[in-house]
Amino acid sequence: MNPHSDRCTLCQEDGGRVIWRDASLRIIAVAGDAHPGFTRVVWNEHISEMTQLPSQARDSLMAAVWRVEQIQRSVLRPDKINLAQFGNMTPHLHWHVIPRWADDSHFPEAIWAAAPARSHAQAMAWNQHKTRMAKRLPDYWAALHECCKTAT
Amino acid sequence: MNPHSDRCTLCQEDGGRVIWRDASLRIIAVAGDAHPGFTRVVWNEHISEMTQLPSQARDSLMAAVWRVEQIQRSVLRPDKINLAQFGNMTPHLHWHVIPRWADDSHFPEAIWAAAPARSHAQAMAWNQHKTRMAKRLPDYWAALHECCKTAT
Repeated sequence: MNPHSDRCTLCQEDGGRVIWRDASLRIIAVAGDAHPGFTRVVWNEHISEMTQLPSQARDSLMAAVWRVEQIQRSVLRPDKINLAQFGNMTPHLHWHVIPRWADDSHFPEAIWAAAPARSHAQAMAWNQHKTRMAKRLPDYWAALHECCKTAT
Repeated sequence: MNPHSDRCTLCQEDGGRVIWRDASLRIIAVAGDAHPGFTRVVWNEHISEMTQLPSQARDSLMAAVWRVEQIQRSVLRPDKINLAQFGNMTPHLHWHVIPRWADDSHFPEAIWAAAPARSHAQAMAWNQHKTRMAKRLPDYWAALHECCKTAT
């Protein structure tokens, strides 16, 4: 047990609704509707940097990230995938996998940046688009679960 | 040759000072002094998503990212490493590898977020810290080059 783990939220909680879990990692549907399909891959053990993982464990974490990306691309068909591993606030390995659309609230900025100015019509169009994407999420989660199950 | 490549800056230019280059990728020192040690790993071929790469190529790109992270950790000793692959503006695979310090201008936010409020004393302290880190960069670049050379 890492000495930090009793103060780490990702050691205490799953971090969202679990789509897949195995002995090494879990895949979480991020709460909220700002970015439909936003998914996190969380390593179960409290480790802060990728190069602190043995190479085989690192490969298995990245294999899960690629599975999420692949299923997002095939089911949600975004214009771009964004991948990030920061951990500045919670230094416990977790990857953000975010489907991005050219008309989303932050495109082409990172979702952590200030949202660019949008007209009322643009904001309305993204709301409608987002609602359509949200309807595909059950298919996305089911396909992701199936893909993980098949891979292991 | 990908049809988009004639309009892509990362197909037209290296994207910064080259620390390492091989047939598949290049490692670039990001211009500017805002985040000392900020490095990019750029895939040479115009491809936009990780899962569009064959698995062996994907592994070799990630191996280069891990080398950068490892050398940043050993030479620059940051408080955290941030990794990101967005490509919203330039959809040509490139990874950001960013050493972060708890007193840097944006910590604990992503560097793309608005900088949190800082006192004058905090801003001065980061400037001094940043200057010290900048002095380590030649050692960092040399170690990174050596590590890539040894690995290939």
